[in-house]
Amino acid sequence: MSEEQVTGEIAGANRLLDTIIGHLKAGDDSVVVDELALLHYGEIASLLEALSPELRQRLWDLIPAQIEGEVLSHLHEKAQASILFKMDDEEVVAAATVMEVNALAQVIDNLSEDLTETVLQSLDEDHRQRLEASMAFTEGTAGRIMNSDVISVRADVTLAVVLRYLRRFPALPPHTDNLMVTDEAGLYLGSVAIADAITGQPDVRVSEVMHSDADWVTVDASEQKIAQMFERRDLISLAVVDEGGMLLGRITVEDAIQIIRSQADHALLASAGLKEEEDLFAPVVPSALRRGLWLGINLVTVFMAAWVIGRFEEVLDKIVVLAVLMPVVSSMGGIAGSQTLTLTIRGMTLGQVSKTNLRWLTNKEVLVGLLNGVVWSLVVGIVTFAWFQQMGIALIIAAAMVLNLFVAALSGVLIPVVLERFGIDPALSGAVVLTTVTDIVGFLSFLGLATWFLI
Amino acid sequence: MSEEQVTGEIAGANRLLDTIIGHLKAGDDSVVVDELALLHYGEIASLLEALSPELRQRLWDLIPAQIEGEVLSHLHEKAQASILFKMDDEEVVAAATVMEVNALAQVIDNLSEDLTETVLQSLDEDHRQRLEASMAFTEGTAGRIMNSDVISVRADVTLAVVLRYLRRFPALPPHTDNLMVTDEAGLYLGSVAIADAITGQPDVRVSEVMHSDADWVTVDASEQKIAQMFERRDLISLAVVDEGGMLLGRITVEDAIQIIRSQADHALLASAGLKEEEDLFAPVVPSALRRGLWLGINLVTVFMAAWVIGRFEEVLDKIVVLAVLMPVVSSMGGIAGSQTLTLTIRGMTLGQVSKTNLRWLTNKEVLVGLLNGVVWSLVVGIVTFAWFQQMGIALIIAAAMVLNLFVAALSGVLIPVVLERFGIDPALSGAVVLTTVTDIVGFLSFLGLATWFLI
Repeated sequence: MSEEQVTGEIAGANRLLDTIIGHLKAGDDSVVVDELALLHYGEIASLLEALSPELRQRLWDLIPAQIEGEVLSHLHEKAQASILFKMDDEEVVAAATVMEVNALAQVIDNLSEDLTETVLQSLDEDHRQRLEASMAFTEGTAGRIMNSDVISVRADVTLAVVLRYLRRFPALPPHTDNLMVTDEAGLYLGSVAIADAITGQPDVRVSEVMHSDADWVTVDASEQKIAQMFERRDLISLAVVDEGGMLLGRITVEDAIQIIRSQADHALLASAGLKEEEDLFAPVVPSALRRGLWLGINLVTVFMAAWVIGRFEEVLDKIVVLAVLMPVVSSMGGIAGSQTLTLTIRGMTLGQVSKTNLRWLTNKEVLVGLLNGVVWSLVVGIVTFAWFQQMGIALIIAAAMVLNLFVAALSGVLIPVVLERFGIDPALSGAVVLTTVTDIVGFLSFLGLATWFLI
Repeated sequence: MSEEQVTGEIAGANRLLDTIIGHLKAGDDSVVVDELALLHYGEIASLLEALSPELRQRLWDLIPAQIEGEVLSHLHEKAQASILFKMDDEEVVAAATVMEVNALAQVIDNLSEDLTETVLQSLDEDHRQRLEASMAFTEGTAGRIMNSDVISVRADVTLAVVLRYLRRFPALPPHTDNLMVTDEAGLYLGSVAIADAITGQPDVRVSEVMHSDADWVTVDASEQKIAQMFERRDLISLAVVDEGGMLLGRITVEDAIQIIRSQADHALLASAGLKEEEDLFAPVVPSALRRGLWLGINLVTVFMAAWVIGRFEEVLDKIVVLAVLMPVVSSMGGIAGSQTLTLTIRGMTLGQVSKTNLRWLTNKEVLVGLLNGVVWSLVVGIVTFAWFQQMGIALIIAAAMVLNLFVAALSGVLIPVVLERFGIDPALSGAVVLTTVTDIVGFLSFLGLATWFLI
């Protein structure tokens, strides 16, 4: 094993990151260049993403021109844009010519119209045509994700012929576990595993060893469906065909991992109003602007809750203890509701929530909510009584909590389902709507019951 | 293309799920059995996970015995346990004998001691030894994840010999993109791509085409590191060696996807106090118990906030408007803080937050927080003045908000870093600690300033 292995075996990206930052700050450019030579594109991209704007630019300038395109394709969108923005036109064009079509399609979206034109003209005819074909597909569909580096063979040839054909390639495209089988017109018939091509007898025909039930998707398949197929069927590559069944390209597990990662990021970040390509190391002003919008949306909902409280000034004025306790009711509702919400949204993403099990799920969540509502409202009632020695308030807070946990459970299931039906992303909006509901119901039930019974 | 393709091309798992639930409820067992025959293990597992306990058991009973082991290995832990619990001992033993070592090691954890003993005794010698070896490794390390179905060749043989050797296998293990190269003692030397073995000249030796810088990990490598290597280096398989460099097994991209999925689930669910193997369709009582604990923890923090409010009964009694407005300050702090917290935790998981960039990151987040604090506190101040016509309260709420957004940003970066330093999982505890801080600082600053200036 070579010396490289010692770094190859990353001992935590942190150590690597610390080393690079240290050398960049010390101005040891040549050491950084040596370190970069040992890394893969994806690792260099990850380093760039972890640097402040100034250091990011410094590191970028040290990256050899011939790998700039590959590194760019591995960056998330915001970081990619931050670098493209500072590259001069020739550099962009040079990087573009070596990029794969699906990565380039994404970069193009970040370029000015003029520069897009220049890039398109600099590509050779074949590359440009494939890029334009790719960009004609909707983002997030198989057509946009696929690559055209697929090796196809005919069904009526022998394995000996197939192996001779493969030997003519200087190297097979990465992740080629299958050869696609087509008829003479290009109609997709199935696939033959490279392993079978090797282990089979040379005089056997492709048609005898091919899997005619091999997986495929049409160009308009969604990325969610593609990721699920890779994940649940343990695929390495997947054929993409047009509506007529003609083979157009393939998607590899590398693309699937990228989809899974970006869906996971979306699920995690959207609930805090963040985009999956949010750049932790972006400059202050753009970060503040993007997040400020979210704060503004939430401010509206918070003022709605405050308005509800404002309706009860009279009772608050008479019984100040209510002001002390009211956050307990709203906050517990928010927490219980967000548990149900998180599970429901995840179930929807995995395709596990459907109209036939929605009723069962709703009943179950409501029962869970009521059970916890009863248990914890008992605790809250006892604590309240011990604290303030007022039985009326203790009973009212317990009742309000049971009610709010019931509503929270119901909302946790139904809000994302309804939002999705209206075409609104539940991962993004679910949490805001839910806490608005649990805040308002929490304040309304607690202060409302107090007004009714105590004054 | 065969008829199967129509179902093969899942038109959303939802439709499949609805069909299966419909047939199960109607008692059309034979139709369900036909549907199952078209599905992959991972898809059947996903269906099982999406069913209520009763239907889950019904579907399980329709699954052919010979694939039970494979389906079990694709289930998440809680669903797996729910099914194992109802299987009779012979069924468990039968399933166990066909499972791969790494999946079986996980199942064993769910079995009673007696049954574990029975399973171990029913395995053949080789299988048992490999299982015991696997279970000797810590969970979440390469040793536990790897499989031993690796094909290794010697460096001094020719490619013709390699191809002859491969032809002796009835089928190559899935995801065999590389052959591992070892010396006669089993020391790992590198790998040779199957594609190179095919396209190379038959008389070339393995040593001439092998990659001696191919990636490997030692048995104690963490799953986080493994997933990052697969993701950033576009791997299909990865060699696992012991401390002495002897080849022990390999990890495939299928395992890596499972790690990525479960890390993503952890990041998403932990912040709501849920476990990644949380079962959306588990029965009511266990669900309520698991979530109840989280509500209890949060109840403590909510009462801490209430206690803080209680210190200000005097000012609340005099100026009831404060009670109406106080949730605005705490809630906005919580939202701004959780944005920073979410990004920081994600950055830490990706290995992008490190001691050398922590200061830059903290400064940046604090500036973002202050900027948004100033802008939105202005809005809040204006709205407050318009609503209540009291300049004092408008100024105080604005000041309290700037303060709370400053603290929120600082906490969003530092809380997860400090928690991790103390060995506490930030994904699980970060949000609770953060909202406790933003609630308390929010109430304290607003009511404190009001007490100071207004009475």
